[in-house]
Amino acid sequence: MQNKILLSEDEIPRQWYNLAADLPGTINPPLGQDGNPISPDMLAAVFPMNLIEQEVSQDRWIDIPEGVLDLLYRWRPSPLHRAFALEKALDTPAKIFYKNESVSPAGSHKPNTAVAQAWYNKEFGIKRLTTETGAGQWGSALSYSCALLGLECKVFMVRVSFDQKPFRKVLMQTWGGQCVPSPSMDTRVGREILEQMPDTPGSLGIAISEAIEAAVGDETGETRYSLGSVLNHVMLHQTIIGLEAKKQLKKAGIDKVDTVIGCAGGGSNFAGLAFPFTYDKINGADIEIIPVEPASCPTLTATPFSYDHGDVAKMTPMLPMHSLGHKFIPAPIHAGGLRYHGMAPLVSHAVEAGLMTPIAVKQLECYEAGLLFARTEGLLVAPETCHAVAGAVRSANQAKEEGKEKTIIFNLSGHGLMDLNGYEKFMAGELQNIALSAQDVEESRKISLEGHPTPKI
Amino acid sequence: MQNKILLSEDEIPRQWYNLAADLPGTINPPLGQDGNPISPDMLAAVFPMNLIEQEVSQDRWIDIPEGVLDLLYRWRPSPLHRAFALEKALDTPAKIFYKNESVSPAGSHKPNTAVAQAWYNKEFGIKRLTTETGAGQWGSALSYSCALLGLECKVFMVRVSFDQKPFRKVLMQTWGGQCVPSPSMDTRVGREILEQMPDTPGSLGIAISEAIEAAVGDETGETRYSLGSVLNHVMLHQTIIGLEAKKQLKKAGIDKVDTVIGCAGGGSNFAGLAFPFTYDKINGADIEIIPVEPASCPTLTATPFSYDHGDVAKMTPMLPMHSLGHKFIPAPIHAGGLRYHGMAPLVSHAVEAGLMTPIAVKQLECYEAGLLFARTEGLLVAPETCHAVAGAVRSANQAKEEGKEKTIIFNLSGHGLMDLNGYEKFMAGELQNIALSAQDVEESRKISLEGHPTPKI
Repeated sequence: MQNKILLSEDEIPRQWYNLAADLPGTINPPLGQDGNPISPDMLAAVFPMNLIEQEVSQDRWIDIPEGVLDLLYRWRPSPLHRAFALEKALDTPAKIFYKNESVSPAGSHKPNTAVAQAWYNKEFGIKRLTTETGAGQWGSALSYSCALLGLECKVFMVRVSFDQKPFRKVLMQTWGGQCVPSPSMDTRVGREILEQMPDTPGSLGIAISEAIEAAVGDETGETRYSLGSVLNHVMLHQTIIGLEAKKQLKKAGIDKVDTVIGCAGGGSNFAGLAFPFTYDKINGADIEIIPVEPASCPTLTATPFSYDHGDVAKMTPMLPMHSLGHKFIPAPIHAGGLRYHGMAPLVSHAVEAGLMTPIAVKQLECYEAGLLFARTEGLLVAPETCHAVAGAVRSANQAKEEGKEKTIIFNLSGHGLMDLNGYEKFMAGELQNIALSAQDVEESRKISLEGHPTPKI
Repeated sequence: MQNKILLSEDEIPRQWYNLAADLPGTINPPLGQDGNPISPDMLAAVFPMNLIEQEVSQDRWIDIPEGVLDLLYRWRPSPLHRAFALEKALDTPAKIFYKNESVSPAGSHKPNTAVAQAWYNKEFGIKRLTTETGAGQWGSALSYSCALLGLECKVFMVRVSFDQKPFRKVLMQTWGGQCVPSPSMDTRVGREILEQMPDTPGSLGIAISEAIEAAVGDETGETRYSLGSVLNHVMLHQTIIGLEAKKQLKKAGIDKVDTVIGCAGGGSNFAGLAFPFTYDKINGADIEIIPVEPASCPTLTATPFSYDHGDVAKMTPMLPMHSLGHKFIPAPIHAGGLRYHGMAPLVSHAVEAGLMTPIAVKQLECYEAGLLFARTEGLLVAPETCHAVAGAVRSANQAKEEGKEKTIIFNLSGHGLMDLNGYEKFMAGELQNIALSAQDVEESRKISLEGHPTPKI
């Protein structure tokens, strides 16, 4: 059997899968400040209308435009690997596969939606995009995509990551993007926060507020905002991961997948792999679907389903999410991409519907799994991805204990070549486990969520 | 036409190509201190005998062991890309292809020989490898390979690169390798040099001396030295690049290649792509084969064919090379992998035989080409690889001036994600061109090469 299962460019999926078409129960709409559902045109200052249409679509399959496919061909289809060396090291009867999204030029799954969003914006006549970034993967991906399409790009990067990863900024600049630490002096909300908390490490919630302000404040009307996770259209674009993986597993002679795993911050890489398998589960397949979140910033495993804003300044509508509250400032753990206070509405809904079984894992177990993976499979994965590896290791060990064969697939969402300071500190014994207590969670939610309605599926 | 031409694992070449079998003229043997050809057993303290046999082999085709193929499958065959976006930006009638060696877990072509050398050493009963590294690509590749095979690895890294690229060390550690700056206090030669020149930036010639001393000085006999370029067996292992590329071009419907380009430091990534095409040229094909070297460390374009040592302490035999002299200390330009004083004997011989037409390019032109490549093709290449891109850009521009169609292929030897400080300085206007004058070259050769015999092909 081959180590890597490849697809040629003409085997690429030509439609995205939209889980919103199949989720059981009621889809809860985004709500405005007044508590009423917002209409699509209320988002028009933030997003181009073609993406807003995707955001609210209930169609199961959505065609991928040829122009987007031409961009995806730069690195897609991505390889599916069989983790023979990891299986051997774990002495497990489980078969472990991983979808390698680190092969994109930006090094992660993020370009899947970045090139699509940049393409739709350009189609709509937009010249300039603003965004936020946590670990830097998303800001890199959007800078890359804007370079390919000749758009300008401005990235607000969470300060703690900006400081931890100076070369992320250079990478974005190399692709022509501008990157500033957030909170910044470039926006009203940034200036206000800096005045109150000059030493804040920042948060995705703050950076999103800044990026939206920078977009809607451009009076030429040629700037829009772009989000790298959470929203329905982002999940949609990522489903190409799982759709390719299903074709590849079939090529590898695998009829049945037992366990699907991804790390989950905002939810997009996880959804990208998991949603096409969730479709099978809704249609009767027996599949365990596991989002893995950090114990330091748990949403699915620690919070109820609530309406909350996506950003600290409440510039976004309220979305139905598992949320720690939009004012939550996460601990500066090294998996910067998993520090968002909320979880994608579609993932949150699927968990509420019992389709997924989330787990929360602590930092040290994740790096340990990442180091084992590097020394067996050879790939050095991002700190975020270490959470998925840790989930796969747990699942494979469980198979060993139970003496059961099973097939596990996880999403290798990105490489860690630009995130080595986390590994360095881990190897030096300088990292600690950080977990939020139930009381921390309750307090954080209390100051953010009072008076917010509760969604029901 | 597809953007990427892929091969499945069962299409991988199963033999390496040995140019030594086909080079016109006399192959000049390595010489000992006494000026007489050395015998293979004189290298036995440095290399395992199975690799020494490859080093002196005159067989045209050498089987790749199944155990090595199993390791190569981790990332090979590598993709061949058509550079549609670069062609468009240059408005050239040329077709430009590039072989993407950046997809290996270590990020460059170096693992092609690293996994092979580690495998042969393990077969021979060796437990521990020592090596040097310039930019860090080779040290990373050998650490990676040793992790896969359970060998220990110690890397002496040229100090200027060690300081420029702190995360390279962490990457090697992640794979279990040990990395120290060279010159170091760990060897006699290192201590002597530090005493004379405490502020030296180091050189590959010094680091090689240290690594050899550390290998031959291990009294258990279980340590050997591993070299990432220059030697015949290294070139041999890299030919898988060109052999795959020829299959891929055929798949893409390309009958004739006009120009083959690679950057050349020690010569291995260049040879890897070029030697299989050199075979065609020897057999009558009309192909231009261009090694691109930095103007700050030119060997093929600036020096005559001479016998010289591979390291500063004369621990290696004398090899027939284009050389700036083994005592040469290069300027600290950012393409750390192209700072070696000599050039691979097989490449040197092929240039003497008129089979190749080397060029030297200055630093700023290279980074400019690299930045253009990043903003069109999207891939951020290593500073070394920028030299190959610059060569391809020159060749494509020439095709435009002449109004001629042609097919160009170059080797994308590695990504630059860990070498962003060079791009940062270039974008900030802080880099200067550095070129060696004829007088610099003459003086450097004078202090190193006096009394060395002159090879004749």
